Amino acid sequence: MYEVEVKVAADLNAVAERLEELGAERTGEVVQVDTYYDAPHRDFAETDEALRVRRETEDGDTEARITYKGPLVESESKTREEHETPVEDGETADAVFENLGFEPAATVEKDRRFYRWDGYTVTLDDVSGVGEFVEVETETDEAGVEAAREGAFEVLQELGLDPDDQTRTSYLGLLLGDAS
Amino acid sequence: MYEVEVKVAADLNAVAERLEELGAERTGEVVQVDTYYDAPHRDFAETDEALRVRRETEDGDTEARITYKGPLVESESKTREEHETPVEDGETADAVFENLGFEPAATVEKDRRFYRWDGYTVTLDDVSGVGEFVEVETETDEAGVEAAREGAFEVLQELGLDPDDQTRTSYLGLLLGDAS
Repeated sequence: MYEVEVKVAADLNAVAERLEELGAERTGEVVQVDTYYDAPHRDFAETDEALRVRRETEDGDTEARITYKGPLVESESKTREEHETPVEDGETADAVFENLGFEPAATVEKDRRFYRWDGYTVTLDDVSGVGEFVEVETETDEAGVEAAREGAFEVLQELGLDPDDQTRTSYLGLLLGDAS
Repeated sequence: MYEVEVKVAADLNAVAERLEELGAERTGEVVQVDTYYDAPHRDFAETDEALRVRRETEDGDTEARITYKGPLVESESKTREEHETPVEDGETADAVFENLGFEPAATVEKDRRFYRWDGYTVTLDDVSGVGEFVEVETETDEAGVEAAREGAFEVLQELGLDPDDQTRTSYLGLLLGDAS
């Protein structure tokens, strides 16, 4: 399975209005607070890895999960090894990593509103300290990647956005870029 | 709160019979499989730390948890900093640590039968590759430590065991000692 995802900077109020006009289904809203860690024995920026503790709050309930992301194994499809599991207590997960010598490097906080439109998930992300972005994504098999990408571009255009504005940098990358 | 714990090698069948005779309440049975990790950047044997992923199975249900144990902060009471949280998926927790460069160092597997007797928890541990042990433990405030230890010795004697046989080495230590 491949995840096809296109992300552009956008005015979220304008996009939300457009989605309402189109009659897109609003499917949820969450707040995600992600703490990314530096390792004591490796430079994750060089190894292209990430260790994250995420808190996701939906309807007042908060769930924590730990995630390891490995380096890109195939750059065209942006495929990575990823291991993620919910943990009962996020503070304890933080304490385990910090005691092992990992240090909080950056926190990415975003408010995410989800819509469903034309076979795609459209996510309106308000990322603290970074800006507002729209992500259009879907899953497909290998043969369908190109068509899925074209379809995502069409959805962007329907929303009044320009596929040429696409950014491939992660929110963490954008945040650290802003800070440097 | 202090945990007072006394552990001696014992013939578990004989102790179980004695507990039945005394009318001790049997409170449960679990199987624990503990994977201890070596760190890529520290020698845990030197720093007196431990990182563990535990699977505990009770009545057919298995729960996983990750635990960090810090060095002794006070040797008399064997007090350590400890951080432990359940995780939804133990294999994923293993994968996170292994991808970060931690390596499985040893696995301690034990069958634990719990009894309640005279204010103490009596645990019959059958530890694979190590042997059979009885642990007698209770919690107390600082002022009660000495009396609690005396009480634990009395329970051992009631069970036909000799407090002088006490071992202070962890099962991991005993396992690694056997292997070296």
